Amino acid sequence: MIKTGIIEGAGFTGGELIRLLLNHPDVHLIFITGRGNSGQHIHEVHRGLYGETDLVFSEEPELDKIDLLFLCTEAEESRQFMQTYTIPEKLKIIDFSREYRLKENCGEFIYGLPELNRRGICKSRFVSNPGNFATCITLGLLPLAKNLMLGDDIYVHAIIGSTGQGRKSSSMTHFSWRNNNVSIYKPFVHQHLPEIHESIHQLQNSFRANIHFVPYRGNFTRGIFCTIMVKNKVSVDELYQLYTDYYAKDSFTHITPDNIDLKQVVNTNKCLIHLEKHDDMLLITSCIDNLLKGSSGQAVHNMNLLFNLEETTGLNLKATAY
Amino acid sequence: MIKTGIIEGAGFTGGELIRLLLNHPDVHLIFITGRGNSGQHIHEVHRGLYGETDLVFSEEPELDKIDLLFLCTEAEESRQFMQTYTIPEKLKIIDFSREYRLKENCGEFIYGLPELNRRGICKSRFVSNPGNFATCITLGLLPLAKNLMLGDDIYVHAIIGSTGQGRKSSSMTHFSWRNNNVSIYKPFVHQHLPEIHESIHQLQNSFRANIHFVPYRGNFTRGIFCTIMVKNKVSVDELYQLYTDYYAKDSFTHITPDNIDLKQVVNTNKCLIHLEKHDDMLLITSCIDNLLKGSSGQAVHNMNLLFNLEETTGLNLKATAY
Amino acid sequence: MIKTGIIEGAGFTGGELIRLLLNHPDVHLIFITGRGNSGQHIHEVHRGLYGETDLVFSEEPELDKIDLLFLCTEAEESRQFMQTYTIPEKLKIIDFSREYRLKENCGEFIYGLPELNRRGICKSRFVSNPGNFATCITLGLLPLAKNLMLGDDIYVHAIIGSTGQGRKSSSMTHFSWRNNNVSIYKPFVHQHLPEIHESIHQLQNSFRANIHFVPYRGNFTRGIFCTIMVKNKVSVDELYQLYTDYYAKDSFTHITPDNIDLKQVVNTNKCLIHLEKHDDMLLITSCIDNLLKGSSGQAVHNMNLLFNLEETTGLNLKATAY
Amino acid sequence: MIKTGIIEGAGFTGGELIRLLLNHPDVHLIFITGRGNSGQHIHEVHRGLYGETDLVFSEEPELDKIDLLFLCTEAEESRQFMQTYTIPEKLKIIDFSREYRLKENCGEFIYGLPELNRRGICKSRFVSNPGNFATCITLGLLPLAKNLMLGDDIYVHAIIGSTGQGRKSSSMTHFSWRNNNVSIYKPFVHQHLPEIHESIHQLQNSFRANIHFVPYRGNFTRGIFCTIMVKNKVSVDELYQLYTDYYAKDSFTHITPDNIDLKQVVNTNKCLIHLEKHDDMLLITSCIDNLLKGSSGQAVHNMNLLFNLEETTGLNLKATAY
Repeated sequence: MIKTGIIEGAGFTGGELIRLLLNHPDVHLIFITGRGNSGQHIHEVHRGLYGETDLVFSEEPELDKIDLLFLCTEAEESRQFMQTYTIPEKLKIIDFSREYRLKENCGEFIYGLPELNRRGICKSRFVSNPGNFATCITLGLLPLAKNLMLGDDIYVHAIIGSTGQGRKSSSMTHFSWRNNNVSIYKPFVHQHLPEIHESIHQLQNSFRANIHFVPYRGNFTRGIFCTIMVKNKVSVDELYQLYTDYYAKDSFTHITPDNIDLKQVVNTNKCLIHLEKHDDMLLITSCIDNLLKGSSGQAVHNMNLLFNLEETTGLNLKATAY
Repeated sequence: MIKTGIIEGAGFTGGELIRLLLNHPDVHLIFITGRGNSGQHIHEVHRGLYGETDLVFSEEPELDKIDLLFLCTEAEESRQFMQTYTIPEKLKIIDFSREYRLKENCGEFIYGLPELNRRGICKSRFVSNPGNFATCITLGLLPLAKNLMLGDDIYVHAIIGSTGQGRKSSSMTHFSWRNNNVSIYKPFVHQHLPEIHESIHQLQNSFRANIHFVPYRGNFTRGIFCTIMVKNKVSVDELYQLYTDYYAKDSFTHITPDNIDLKQVVNTNKCLIHLEKHDDMLLITSCIDNLLKGSSGQAVHNMNLLFNLEETTGLNLKATAY
Repeated sequence: MIKTGIIEGAGFTGGELIRLLLNHPDVHLIFITGRGNSGQHIHEVHRGLYGETDLVFSEEPELDKIDLLFLCTEAEESRQFMQTYTIPEKLKIIDFSREYRLKENCGEFIYGLPELNRRGICKSRFVSNPGNFATCITLGLLPLAKNLMLGDDIYVHAIIGSTGQGRKSSSMTHFSWRNNNVSIYKPFVHQHLPEIHESIHQLQNSFRANIHFVPYRGNFTRGIFCTIMVKNKVSVDELYQLYTDYYAKDSFTHITPDNIDLKQVVNTNKCLIHLEKHDDMLLITSCIDNLLKGSSGQAVHNMNLLFNLEETTGLNLKATAY
Repeated sequence: MIKTGIIEGAGFTGGELIRLLLNHPDVHLIFITGRGNSGQHIHEVHRGLYGETDLVFSEEPELDKIDLLFLCTEAEESRQFMQTYTIPEKLKIIDFSREYRLKENCGEFIYGLPELNRRGICKSRFVSNPGNFATCITLGLLPLAKNLMLGDDIYVHAIIGSTGQGRKSSSMTHFSWRNNNVSIYKPFVHQHLPEIHESIHQLQNSFRANIHFVPYRGNFTRGIFCTIMVKNKVSVDELYQLYTDYYAKDSFTHITPDNIDLKQVVNTNKCLIHLEKHDDMLLITSCIDNLLKGSSGQAVHNMNLLFNLEETTGLNLKATAY
C-alpha cells in the first residue's frame, strides 16, 4: 500500500483526489491538511463522502509517515512548502500548481503529462501535474508536433466548467450569474500557454508560430471541450493513422472517427479526440474532465507511474453519461 | 410622470425594479442609491443595462425631489431608514422588506397583495410588498379562505430559484454546488409563514390549522413553483368556479384547467393556478416569477395602484418561455 | 466470472448497466440485445464507451451461454419474454420492469430491495428490481414500519431527473422546455405507490393510511430527492437510533445528522437519509441516483447477492460531487 | 393598427413572434396558421400565453384581411407559399426562411438586416429576415468591411442555445443528452456562411478571404455568443471609434468597453459588441438572443421599418438578466 498525504485537500481538486484515493486499491490515505478546516471531518467539507471515511483534516503534515505527497496548493504556496519543510529523502511528490511546470523553474520536477513523458515520470521522484487547459489542448497537438507538422498559427477555443475556477465564491461563480450564461476571459494570455508551447517544442523544436487561445466560461460544472484550427495539407485518413499511432500505448487518450461531445468524458479520466478537414484546414476537437484527466485523475495516473502500478489502477471510472 | 427613487438598488430585486421602471411609460427615475456602489454607473452593476441608462448610483437620497420611494432594503434597514430620514408629507413609499408586513408592526403600511387588498392599497401612502413565497402560496389559498373552507392542516412544498437568496455569494450560491442540485432549507419555520397566516385570517378569521411548509432550493435562477395539499369535500368544478370568481378582476392571477409549468410565468408578472382533486384531497399548484410577481413586479403593480394607473401599465412582459 | 446477458440494452438503464458491468471485476458481458440496434457497436449508442468495449448489439439472446440475464424491458415485454423463451434451469434473472414486483403477480420473483429482502434475494433465482421512486421513498419509511410507527397519512414530494422518463424523445424531454423548468405529473396515482404500500405492509401489516405522493419533474438529469412528512411522537434522537439500527448492516444506505443535497449521491449507489422534527411532525429527507440505487446499481447489487459476492463489488463509485 | 397574419406559428420562432405582437401597441393579430394545430387555442401550444389571447390556429390564411404576413416557414415552404397563393397587391411580407436571403434568388425581397439595409427596408414590400448566426457574426464585422479592413482569414466560434434547432424533438434535443453538454456541428459549412459573405461584399466588394466558422451547441436555451479573430493593424481605440460611428444611429446594437456575457442580451432585441486586441490580432465578441435579434425580434424591427414606426416600438424588452 502506498501511504499518501494531501496538502490543502479542502478545494475542488483536493476533494476529487480524495474521492479517487478512497477507492484506489493500493492507496492508504494517512493525512489531509486543509487551511481553516483542521479538526473537521473530511465529510463535513466534501459532503458526499458521508459513510466513506472518518478521516479528519490535520493541522500539520507528517511527512515521515508517507510515501507520496500531493500538493493541492497554488503556485507560490507550493514553492513555499518545498522551501519550508524538510522533504524526507524517499518521499515522492506530485504538485498540482503551475510553479514547477516550466523547465526554467522546474528543479527536479518533471512535467507530468504521461502521453509526452511517461518514461521520464516512471523514473522520477517529483512530478508537476499539468494544467487542465494545457492537457486538453496539448493532447490535441502532440501527434502533429511529433511529425513536425506545426508551422502555421494555431487558433484555439475551449470552454470550461465552473470547477475550473476553484472553490472560492465570487460574483462570477454565483449560480444566478453563471446559469445559462457564457462569457470569455483572458483571451490570448491564459497562463497555460507557456506550458503548451514548451510541450510542443519538446517534440518539434522548430515551432515558432502563435497559438491564439480564447477560453470560454461554460454553464456546466465539469469538463473542457476545445476546438483547434490549424492549416495542414495531409489527408484526414493519414492524420488519423498518425494520431492513432502516437496514442497507441496510452490508456486514456482515444482517437475516434465519430463526433464527440463533452459528457462522453465527464467523470472519467479519458481524453477523446476527433479530427476533421475542410480543404487545407484541420479541425481538432478534444475533450476531458477538467478535474480528472485535467487535474486529480492525471495526478493519480502519475502516482501509478511513480509506483510502477498498472496505469489505469483506480481510474476505471463510470462516466456520468447523462 | 411619477418621479421615483430607489434605496439599495444594487441587488437582485433592485436590478429587476430598475429594468421595469426604465421601460415604464409613466415613471421618471430620479436617483438610485447602492451601498458601496455610489459613483458607479447603473450599467456597471446591472450590466445588461448598457445602452439603456446613464444613471449613476447616488450617495444620498433626495427625498424632496420624488413622489415615490422604493426601499429595497432588509427588514432592519427599512425601519432604520424610516426613523433616520424625515419623510416628506406627500412621499409615497413601497418597502420590499418584511419589517412592516405584519399588523402588529405595520404602522401606516398596508400589506401590498393586490388580490387581497387592492382597494386599501389604492387609498394608501405606504405599502409593504409581500414576500415571494408568501405571494405564491397565499394566492393558492385565498379563494378557500374567502369561502371559509380551510379547516384541516395544509401541506406545502415550494421550490425556488437562486435569485430568491439574494446577491451575496456563498458556498450555497456557488454554481459548482447548485448546478443540477436540489436541497431544502428552513422546513416548517420559513419567515414567510406568519404573513401567510395573517392573510388567511383576514378572510377566514376562524382558521387555526397548521401550515407545514418545506421550501426547496432549485437549480434554476427565477421562479417559485408550489404544490399545496389540503383536504376538501367540494367538487373540483365548483372549486374552479370559486377560484375563477375570486380572481375575476385581477389582471395577473389566472386559473387554468391545464397542467402548469414554471416557465409559463418566468419573466412575467403572472401567477398561474391549477386545481386537481383525488378523493377528498385537493392539490393546488401555483407558480410565479419570484423577482416579478414575487417582488419587483408586484411593487410596480402596487405603484400603479397608488397612482391610479391602469394596473398592468409597464407589466405586460414577454415570458422567457423557453 | 459471471457470464451475463442484457435484453434491451440501448436505453438509459441499459447504458448505465453496461457501464457498471464493464468495470465489475467478476462479470463477463456475453451479449446485449437492443431493438433496432442489432449489428451496431455498443459505443455507437452509448457513445462515451468508446475505447472501453468492442461488443456489438445482438439480434438474439443466447440464454444457454450465460449465468445471469438482465431484462431492461417494459412491464409487458418482460412477461412476454418469460413466456416466449425457454429459460435454462440454472439461469438467474433480474427484471427491471414493474411486472413482477407485486406479490399477486410475482411468480418466482422476489422484490429486490436488499434493505428489505436481503436474505431472500441471496437464496433466489429471479429478482424483480424495485422502481426508482419506490426505492427512495420506501427506504425513508422502512424503519418506521419495522417499529410499527406508521399510522397517520403520509405526505410525499419527490423531484426526479430527466433520465427517469426514459430515452424516448417528446416535447416533455425537449431541452428547450425542460431547462430551468419545474412541473408535476401523476399526482396521487404514480405507478410506484402499490409497491411502496406492499413493502410497508411486509413490516407493518396493520398499515391502512394514505400516501399522498406528488412527483415533480426537475431540470437535472440524474437523481431523486424526496421529502416525507408524517406525524410521529417519538423524539428525533430516538428516531435516529432506530434508523441507524435498521440500516446498520446495509452498505449503501446511510443516516446522516447533516442536511443532505442531491449531488451527494449522484453517480453513486448510495441512499442518504436525514431526519428532522418540528413539534409532532417528522420530516424525512431521502435521496438517491435514480439510475443507480434506483435502477441499474441496485440490479448489480442484487446480482452480487445472487452470486454471493461482497455486496459492494463494482459499486464503489466516485460521486460526480460538483 | 397593422393587421397581421402568421403562417406556421406553432414553432419556436412563431411563438416568440406571437408573444411580441400581443404586446405591440400598433399591431392587431388577425390569424395564425399552424400545421396540425388548426382549431387549437394558441395558448394550448404556447402554454405561457394563457390569459393573454383567445386566438385559435386557423386552417387557411386570409390574405385579403391583413396588411402584413409573417412566413415562419422553412426555405422550400416559403417559396411554395409564394407560388401557391395570390399575394394581394398591398400585402407586405416578412419571410423567416433563408430562401430569399441571397441576391441570386431574392426576387423582390430585401435582406432584412437593418444595420446594413435600413433605408432599403423602409422602402420595400418584401423582407427576408436574416439567419441568427448570420446576424450575430455579420454585426461583428460590418464596421471593418465598411472601412475596407477585411483582408485576412477570419476565425469564428459561436455557441448557440437549443432553441436554435427548432421545436422538433430528437436525441440531440433530449434534455438528458444536452444538459451540461457541449458539442459542435457543421464546422466550416454552416448554411449561414453565404449570407455573411454577401453582407460583407456589399460594403467591401474586394473581400476574398475565408471565414472559418465552427458552431457549438450550448447547454442553454436562448442566445448566441460569438468570438471572431482577425488580423488588424489599427489601434483598439480607433476601432472602437469606427464601430461606434457605424452603429451610431442603430437602436439595438451597442459597442461596449466592458467584457460582455450572454445573459446581458437574453430576452432582449440587443446586440452587444466588445473589442480587444493582442498585438495584431483583433478579437471581436458579439452576442444576441437568437429568437429575438436573431429572429422574431428582428422581424418586428423590420415590420416597424416597413410601416414607418419608431424602430424600437414593442421591442423595449426586459432582459432575463439572471
